[in-house]
Amino acid sequence: MQEDRQRDVLKRLSYIEGHVAGIHKMVEEDNYCVDILRQTYAVHKALEKLEQIILEGHLLTYVPEGIRGNREQEVIQELLQLYRIAGNP
Amino acid sequence: MQEDRQRDVLKRLSYIEGHVAGIHKMVEEDNYCVDILRQTYAVHKALEKLEQIILEGHLLTYVPEGIRGNREQEVIQELLQLYRIAGNP
Amino acid sequence: MQEDRQRDVLKRLSYIEGHVAGIHKMVEEDNYCVDILRQTYAVHKALEKLEQIILEGHLLTYVPEGIRGNREQEVIQELLQLYRIAGNP
Amino acid sequence: MQEDRQRDVLKRLSYIEGHVAGIHKMVEEDNYCVDILRQTYAVHKALEKLEQIILEGHLLTYVPEGIRGNREQEVIQELLQLYRIAGNP
Repeated sequence: MQEDRQRDVLKRLSYIEGHVAGIHKMVEEDNYCVDILRQTYAVHKALEKLEQIILEGHLLTYVPEGIRGNREQEVIQELLQLYRIAGNP
Repeated sequence: MQEDRQRDVLKRLSYIEGHVAGIHKMVEEDNYCVDILRQTYAVHKALEKLEQIILEGHLLTYVPEGIRGNREQEVIQELLQLYRIAGNP
Repeated sequence: MQEDRQRDVLKRLSYIEGHVAGIHKMVEEDNYCVDILRQTYAVHKALEKLEQIILEGHLLTYVPEGIRGNREQEVIQELLQLYRIAGNP
Repeated sequence: MQEDRQRDVLKRLSYIEGHVAGIHKMVEEDNYCVDILRQTYAVHKALEKLEQIILEGHLLTYVPEGIRGNREQEVIQELLQLYRIAGNP
């Protein structure tokens, strides 16, 4: 991953880790279920943003390199797999 | 799209059209909401299968052609957009 | 379903049917894959709006009636099932 | 939340925290993007299972109590909101 992108991803992961730790505390303190669910939904959202940034890096660098470097089959199969996994979480 | 793939996609679209028409009839006859929702969920599933087949064709033919044909920027930007739209339906 | 809600749902279903018929035509005429996918994503979105309206009706009328009418177990189990199906489409 | 359910949720949260920490390490060590994305998808899945367990508790205890205790409007509005948020992550 490019350095800037990696730094951004790490910052976002730290934020997500703090968020999940906060949810852990909410459950320990027996907070209201609906409030807890609102927080878990926010974690999904933060994860999705992270995935977009990682995928963008992958598409901008690895995919074109792979296709020009005769690893086309492998690169395309992986993109298909990612889409299939993402669509059936 | 390759001919086989196109034929498969058209068959699936006809099936989806019949499915939606069936839901229309269920609502007209005031069927139970939960049964209607089960059917709309099945339509999502059928659509997702269709999208995978279309995307597979795109990735296997158009994307490698585009990257080798110097339309790399355009091809990659479109893939990013597709992922963004799919992830935020 | 209340009459107003039913009318709204039927109107939306007609719109979705037209939309899917349009996609069918796009595939027949071999339109660009990315444009087709944008349309199928729009159908997901329209279906989700429809589901919200149906679920709203269910929650506002059937669920409270069921719970007060001693069909609590059944009503709650169905809501759980709907959530499970929606979350794993 | 019932005690058993709370214990189960906390165990699952600890697992998710470990999982996210593992992803953090993968990014620091510049692992392959596709492998990282496979792990973030697994976190979504683990979170969704957690949400189902929390929602189940909410539906089995709080919702029926609320409806019988004349907080019907509030309880139903919250369920609608949860569905809306979950459907548009």
